[in-house]
Amino acid sequence: MTTRKDGRTTDQLRQVTIERGWSDQAEGSALISYGKTRVLCTASFTPGVPRWLTGKGRGWVTAEYAMLPRATNERSRRESVKGRIGGRTHEISRLIGRSLRAVVDTKALGENTIMIDCDVLQADGGTRTASITGAYVALADAIEWARGKGHVGKNSTPLIDSVSAVSVGIIDGEPMLDLAYVEDVRAETDMNVVVTGRGLFVEVQGTAEGAPFDRRELDSLLDLAVAGAAELGDIQRNALAAS
Amino acid sequence: MTTRKDGRTTDQLRQVTIERGWSDQAEGSALISYGKTRVLCTASFTPGVPRWLTGKGRGWVTAEYAMLPRATNERSRRESVKGRIGGRTHEISRLIGRSLRAVVDTKALGENTIMIDCDVLQADGGTRTASITGAYVALADAIEWARGKGHVGKNSTPLIDSVSAVSVGIIDGEPMLDLAYVEDVRAETDMNVVVTGRGLFVEVQGTAEGAPFDRRELDSLLDLAVAGAAELGDIQRNALAAS
Amino acid sequence: MTTRKDGRTTDQLRQVTIERGWSDQAEGSALISYGKTRVLCTASFTPGVPRWLTGKGRGWVTAEYAMLPRATNERSRRESVKGRIGGRTHEISRLIGRSLRAVVDTKALGENTIMIDCDVLQADGGTRTASITGAYVALADAIEWARGKGHVGKNSTPLIDSVSAVSVGIIDGEPMLDLAYVEDVRAETDMNVVVTGRGLFVEVQGTAEGAPFDRRELDSLLDLAVAGAAELGDIQRNALAAS
Amino acid sequence: MTTRKDGRTTDQLRQVTIERGWSDQAEGSALISYGKTRVLCTASFTPGVPRWLTGKGRGWVTAEYAMLPRATNERSRRESVKGRIGGRTHEISRLIGRSLRAVVDTKALGENTIMIDCDVLQADGGTRTASITGAYVALADAIEWARGKGHVGKNSTPLIDSVSAVSVGIIDGEPMLDLAYVEDVRAETDMNVVVTGRGLFVEVQGTAEGAPFDRRELDSLLDLAVAGAAELGDIQRNALAAS
Amino acid sequence: MTTRKDGRTTDQLRQVTIERGWSDQAEGSALISYGKTRVLCTASFTPGVPRWLTGKGRGWVTAEYAMLPRATNERSRRESVKGRIGGRTHEISRLIGRSLRAVVDTKALGENTIMIDCDVLQADGGTRTASITGAYVALADAIEWARGKGHVGKNSTPLIDSVSAVSVGIIDGEPMLDLAYVEDVRAETDMNVVVTGRGLFVEVQGTAEGAPFDRRELDSLLDLAVAGAAELGDIQRNALAAS
Amino acid sequence: MTTRKDGRTTDQLRQVTIERGWSDQAEGSALISYGKTRVLCTASFTPGVPRWLTGKGRGWVTAEYAMLPRATNERSRRESVKGRIGGRTHEISRLIGRSLRAVVDTKALGENTIMIDCDVLQADGGTRTASITGAYVALADAIEWARGKGHVGKNSTPLIDSVSAVSVGIIDGEPMLDLAYVEDVRAETDMNVVVTGRGLFVEVQGTAEGAPFDRRELDSLLDLAVAGAAELGDIQRNALAAS
Repeated sequence: MTTRKDGRTTDQLRQVTIERGWSDQAEGSALISYGKTRVLCTASFTPGVPRWLTGKGRGWVTAEYAMLPRATNERSRRESVKGRIGGRTHEISRLIGRSLRAVVDTKALGENTIMIDCDVLQADGGTRTASITGAYVALADAIEWARGKGHVGKNSTPLIDSVSAVSVGIIDGEPMLDLAYVEDVRAETDMNVVVTGRGLFVEVQGTAEGAPFDRRELDSLLDLAVAGAAELGDIQRNALAAS
Repeated sequence: MTTRKDGRTTDQLRQVTIERGWSDQAEGSALISYGKTRVLCTASFTPGVPRWLTGKGRGWVTAEYAMLPRATNERSRRESVKGRIGGRTHEISRLIGRSLRAVVDTKALGENTIMIDCDVLQADGGTRTASITGAYVALADAIEWARGKGHVGKNSTPLIDSVSAVSVGIIDGEPMLDLAYVEDVRAETDMNVVVTGRGLFVEVQGTAEGAPFDRRELDSLLDLAVAGAAELGDIQRNALAAS
Repeated sequence: MTTRKDGRTTDQLRQVTIERGWSDQAEGSALISYGKTRVLCTASFTPGVPRWLTGKGRGWVTAEYAMLPRATNERSRRESVKGRIGGRTHEISRLIGRSLRAVVDTKALGENTIMIDCDVLQADGGTRTASITGAYVALADAIEWARGKGHVGKNSTPLIDSVSAVSVGIIDGEPMLDLAYVEDVRAETDMNVVVTGRGLFVEVQGTAEGAPFDRRELDSLLDLAVAGAAELGDIQRNALAAS
Repeated sequence: MTTRKDGRTTDQLRQVTIERGWSDQAEGSALISYGKTRVLCTASFTPGVPRWLTGKGRGWVTAEYAMLPRATNERSRRESVKGRIGGRTHEISRLIGRSLRAVVDTKALGENTIMIDCDVLQADGGTRTASITGAYVALADAIEWARGKGHVGKNSTPLIDSVSAVSVGIIDGEPMLDLAYVEDVRAETDMNVVVTGRGLFVEVQGTAEGAPFDRRELDSLLDLAVAGAAELGDIQRNALAAS
Repeated sequence: MTTRKDGRTTDQLRQVTIERGWSDQAEGSALISYGKTRVLCTASFTPGVPRWLTGKGRGWVTAEYAMLPRATNERSRRESVKGRIGGRTHEISRLIGRSLRAVVDTKALGENTIMIDCDVLQADGGTRTASITGAYVALADAIEWARGKGHVGKNSTPLIDSVSAVSVGIIDGEPMLDLAYVEDVRAETDMNVVVTGRGLFVEVQGTAEGAPFDRRELDSLLDLAVAGAAELGDIQRNALAAS
Repeated sequence: MTTRKDGRTTDQLRQVTIERGWSDQAEGSALISYGKTRVLCTASFTPGVPRWLTGKGRGWVTAEYAMLPRATNERSRRESVKGRIGGRTHEISRLIGRSLRAVVDTKALGENTIMIDCDVLQADGGTRTASITGAYVALADAIEWARGKGHVGKNSTPLIDSVSAVSVGIIDGEPMLDLAYVEDVRAETDMNVVVTGRGLFVEVQGTAEGAPFDRRELDSLLDLAVAGAAELGDIQRNALAAS
């Protein structure tokens, strides 16, 4: 089996750690690392929903993703200084929001809003997938907080499943799990897969960066991703089990 | 077999028409319809490339997508008036650009830029997939124009394949091809698939709007999409064969 | 008499066509051509008025003008991408709105809003005048639609007159009607005239692009414009008479 | 003859004063008053022209108009705070620039730029016309300054004519000259006319605010405006004659 | 004692004049000069307070500062054209607002808002300090106006003290009062001091532009500033005493 | 002596820790804590200077400050989403930049740029002072990095002193050092003081939030700040001594 630059096998995740409750301010929070990629995920709970949802008896979960200017090897200009949010930022924010909503029963959440912020403190590939995996932990804690305060009923279960995400890609013809930045830029095909704890797909986003890919390649990437997501689910569970 | 609201079978495209050369101004253009969805695609050729590409002997293809305010059933505010481009617009513009670049040999294109504009005149679902299919035709014509003017060499073949796109989705548990707007809003899972003329994948973007989906569902959606894309490829070929 | 590049006499309009009801979505719509200039005009009807008008028993008609990036011979940057609307766009939007309001009895319209969108699909001079002429047709249809739905009373006549517009200019000392782009750039004086069906002036906007003009020149331009507007009024009437 | 609220006859200007050289910083400046309307006009001279004009041997004159937030009876929000310039501001800036360029021989000006700023310190109707009349004086002084510094040749005459502007309007059926704010809001028709020292038209912008107007009304407004502009020309000449 | 370029002694203010009631529109206004620095200060009174203050029985005073583009020796771009307000503008606006609020009893003001605008017509150093000194006069007049109209009670005294401001700095090792622009750019240390009529400090903002400063230098700068502010207080009193 | 809510004496700093080299990407970095306030400071080194400095043989140091949306107790809207940077952010960014430049010999730095980013991960008062103290450590490391790479000469000493900052304030009449958030909101007077390692002042920014302050109060605040800054200087030295 191929060995990678950082010594991993092709089906091996980087070291994943979740520092739960990193923030003293947020209702839920997690500092997650996928190797050198580090993302601070916070969940802010507010009673009430945006006006367009009011009175429908359902809650709202949304997300914003951003990167510190020197998270990357070359400093990038702040989006606040540019005065506009880039397409990539928008796209990832929307992806995180959709992924989390897929495991939330908004009826059970009641008319409450949870705002997820994923701020990349350091980037080394996989920032969007680490964001989703970490955001789930922050979300779970915010919901527990809300239950403790009585905003969510004792018998309500707003979380109907867990969710995690991982990238996969084909490099030199070989499918690999959880790409680091140096791998990501070399990948011919790059796929981000969001999977629930039960092993169902929430998002499958495959892109041919170089040559288009065939059905067989697609299948092996999905296999790798499903296995990786199962491991991530265990790590989430362990983090949430600790008190 | 299920019949749909508009009488189609589940594996049937809407009526697709391509009015090539709609514009008197652009180097390539096509007014494409997928049923009531109508998109004006233009390709603008400019010698030279953006500064960051200069001197590398490669060309550049990029795209912008937008919707007229009253393309939809309810008028939406213009993004120029809001002063910022929304996340969805950004996301689709990037998708169109990537899809076209997947079939372009930028070396063979030489240091030239082709800018694709996809403006949705009327929207009834599938605007992004119609944009890609139409944009390919505009792109092909712009490259022919450039060849005629000597910007692209007689023996260069910048287009290494064709590309088209179609949406598929699961409605009431049933996989369906080329969703109209009323179908799209009801779909549990929604997937946009971009396929080359040779049947390879460029993009696979599947999203669970309602319940997450399993591997078997994913497979039948891909089957439908590949068949639909083959039909679209024929329609593109016919349009380009006409003079 | 001078013959022009496209074979017209100095007092001749270009071929004007109005494709009424082009849009399946809008309450009123018209695709108008003045030669190669093509503008899609839609009228969006909404019950209710902006807050500052509420409770005064009067309706509101306003307009937005825009141009597709490749409507012109050289592609221009999208205003949505620039993040701000240019002065020319603002100026023309305001002109269209004022021109239409001049023939609307807002009391008879009741507390309803009609939003006109004029999107230039292809530009060859006279885009603002074509917009006004086409917008009137879309407006008339939207009002009929509203009458049919009961938003406007059976006996109310919100339209107190019709309105159309045409450009005139002096080229090589000769006054000419309905300037195409190549004429427009050469004109010493350029005037846009908005005239009602009864032959009264709504707007007279004359500008010396080169040498200032005298009273006699002003008078012959106005004569030409009034005659051209009468023809345009006939074309509008025919379009609206068809069902 | 009708007497107006402020005691003027219908063909009488308000008191017009020009305080030339108000600024210690600008190359040319004038604080102009039309009654209570007060505009500070400065002309900033810079050697060189914008890139798009470079090497063509011609100069450039352009203008920006703005209003202090409390120039008016009700404070308006600053455009810098809103983050965008309104349509009206754009429109007037463009009008001032065009009006001045109509009397400038840009060849004689050489590759130099003059930027005009018209900032309304107090507004009581006619701010755009006062701006043009005052800007001409600032422009003339900036050109003299440039001649003194050798930027403009001793024998060059960049100013081929003078230019001034005045509003006229029809109130209660009566044509009137130089409308104050209370008159302006009541006018059925409102026209801004820009006239050169030789009596030729640079701009004629007539707008029906209420009922459309006929040819006879248009003619009497033009008569009034031409006479008013002649008086303004005298006031400009006197201001420039003083040292 | 050192003599300065303009003949002043080190502890001497420039000529300070206050033209009270310069504006016909604002509830309070003052055109203040510190030498060639000229700032138009207006105070706009509105009954009611911003939403976040409603129902607390307190008023609100805030300020906006701006500079005309040609107030300075080289023309600067308008912030409205740039589409964003610069850091310096923001900082000074906030300083003016805080300085005025320090002498206002917002309870006594009642639920009313006073908006101060300080627009620099000409700049020669000390624009922020002149703005504060002039704004106080405009504010005082606006409060008198409000008392006259009954918005503020006969026995309420919203102004609990007066406030003025002056700059001080160290040039060639020598502390100096009220720096003109040519002095300001040469100062090693630059301090803006806001002092009440009773001689208490509202703001002390000292900045080492060159070498850091020691406690003894800080002390002599404060001495100079307190003496200068006392003189400014007299000038304000005289201006307000006149009717 | 008064004891504070968190048990400190009035002249006691919160626990201050500096985690040097927190980032794997930046040339210099420090994660600094003042109690619960945590700021990530990075220094990005780039050869070359902005255009306006080119060829003058001097370097450039500048800074940007920002806060994560959930750094505070209530989530605030991202400035990138608002599309504009607030006044407070601008003001603090400028303060940090000036403070660092006061201890940099830009000649010795050569034509190189160092960009400091201070991102507040958690806020509990004193974010601007912690930023300055942490930024100095990141700056020192980036300069050492540049020396190692040969961008800065072996014998050049761009850092001529160290710099740190601390807040002081008067609460219930009592001067206190290093205010936590709950103290800050209650302070009558609030002062941020930036002091060099040699004990000289770089910035003194005192503001009366409630009642204005007198000379004696100012003096005791300065005494407290100078002593606190000396302690911070020791902590910086220790952090930099460690390898």
